[in-house]
Amino acid sequence: MPPRRCTAYAGSDYDDDDDDDNLTARISRCLSCDENYDPDEAGTCKECYEEANETEEELKRQIQDLKSKVSFLTLASPLDSPSTTDLVLLPSADAFSPSIPAHKAVLVSRSPVFRAMLEHDMDESRSGTIKIAEVSYDALRAFVNYLYTAEAFLDNQMACNLLVLAEKYQVKHLKAYCEKYLISKLNWEKAVVNFAFAHQHNANQLQDAALAVIMENMDNLTKNEDYIELVDSNPRLVVEIYEAYLGKQVNTAAAHCCVNI
Amino acid sequence: MPPRRCTAYAGSDYDDDDDDDNLTARISRCLSCDENYDPDEAGTCKECYEEANETEEELKRQIQDLKSKVSFLTLASPLDSPSTTDLVLLPSADAFSPSIPAHKAVLVSRSPVFRAMLEHDMDESRSGTIKIAEVSYDALRAFVNYLYTAEAFLDNQMACNLLVLAEKYQVKHLKAYCEKYLISKLNWEKAVVNFAFAHQHNANQLQDAALAVIMENMDNLTKNEDYIELVDSNPRLVVEIYEAYLGKQVNTAAAHCCVNI
Repeated sequence: MPPRRCTAYAGSDYDDDDDDDNLTARISRCLSCDENYDPDEAGTCKECYEEANETEEELKRQIQDLKSKVSFLTLASPLDSPSTTDLVLLPSADAFSPSIPAHKAVLVSRSPVFRAMLEHDMDESRSGTIKIAEVSYDALRAFVNYLYTAEAFLDNQMACNLLVLAEKYQVKHLKAYCEKYLISKLNWEKAVVNFAFAHQHNANQLQDAALAVIMENMDNLTKNEDYIELVDSNPRLVVEIYEAYLGKQVNTAAAHCCVNI
Repeated sequence: MPPRRCTAYAGSDYDDDDDDDNLTARISRCLSCDENYDPDEAGTCKECYEEANETEEELKRQIQDLKSKVSFLTLASPLDSPSTTDLVLLPSADAFSPSIPAHKAVLVSRSPVFRAMLEHDMDESRSGTIKIAEVSYDALRAFVNYLYTAEAFLDNQMACNLLVLAEKYQVKHLKAYCEKYLISKLNWEKAVVNFAFAHQHNANQLQDAALAVIMENMDNLTKNEDYIELVDSNPRLVVEIYEAYLGKQVNTAAAHCCVNI
């Protein structure tokens, strides 16, 4: 931050070299950056600054406590210590891949779909084997790991794979985690694909974010290859884009109209 | 907060009713409490205030994320859904009390003592029953519940009971939780008992806090009934109190000496 000098007092009675105590007393010094500031650069009084400092300390303490709680509640991945596991998950897309061990108690606790499956007398409950359709070994392994640790290493593909599993097994925390990642990586190149993907898997936040990016690039929309494909594969969804665009235009026109009146 | 008025400018060129724009521009207004303030009551400049606000928002977002992670990682108590449990705990102090169901995976994950017990071919591992000595049903139930949820309803007695179990089974998070509670309730009446209790169960933070309270009440120490009992039961520990007191006196004398020189 560049040093600031107090200039508001540079009137008839103010000289830059003046050491007059009275004058010095009029200069406000920031307790945070230790620079002098003008009244029109004023932030807070001392009392509010001290209160804000206490609040910040308290928030940091809360974060520390919560981090320690997260660390306590995190379970070891069943792949690292499979000795007490009581079922296995099989990735059906990977015929020769090994199964992944897990604990019924954890699956039941994290997913209402697994709960329904395992707490009732269903095939999966009796056999202790759950087949997971259309998923690779790596994605399933990351999925199971997340159920134990609430952590995953994501790239675009893994975030999509895990979002699909999270939606299917209703693991809301993981779904939000993947959506957040995909939103952070959104750009015009990915916007249409992400919009369609989000719509397919009920990822509303990602869908809204992708739509917003599309709205900013309507001039290029019809030249976009993903758009051309989407017109073929899901024209109803393309209509949603145009309806949103029209709605935005109508609102903008109404706002202009109000300003002009 | 009482309203403040800027008074630093109340010199020859300042009149309380003066509406002069120049003068108004010299008055600093706190962006937090919206009151005017003097330079000697200055807290921060605007830039630092805005930075601090952003920091606070970011910390609050982190807290929200961590709370959601804690909620995701929290497991249902095995007492509420015992269907997938694979062992039971027996409170040996309560001969007729029911056993408490639990999951090996959770016990192993939370306690190195349970891990050693259950991952090796020991009696407990084979039988699926762990006897817990000198503990009531209620305390054991609260202990198991904490292993799943990182939450417990404490009063003084329960905090002591859980601290003993936490120390015995090396559940550090619970031990710190109980120590924090007991420290928050410390007073002179409880100080000697807590000091001895903390010493017995290696609760160093509680022991230090209790010793500090004792140091502030040395005049009343020899009349304290818990002290009289402690002299009988553990005179070595009483010596620790006096050694700490002596150390404090020597330090205080040294500090006085330095000031006088």
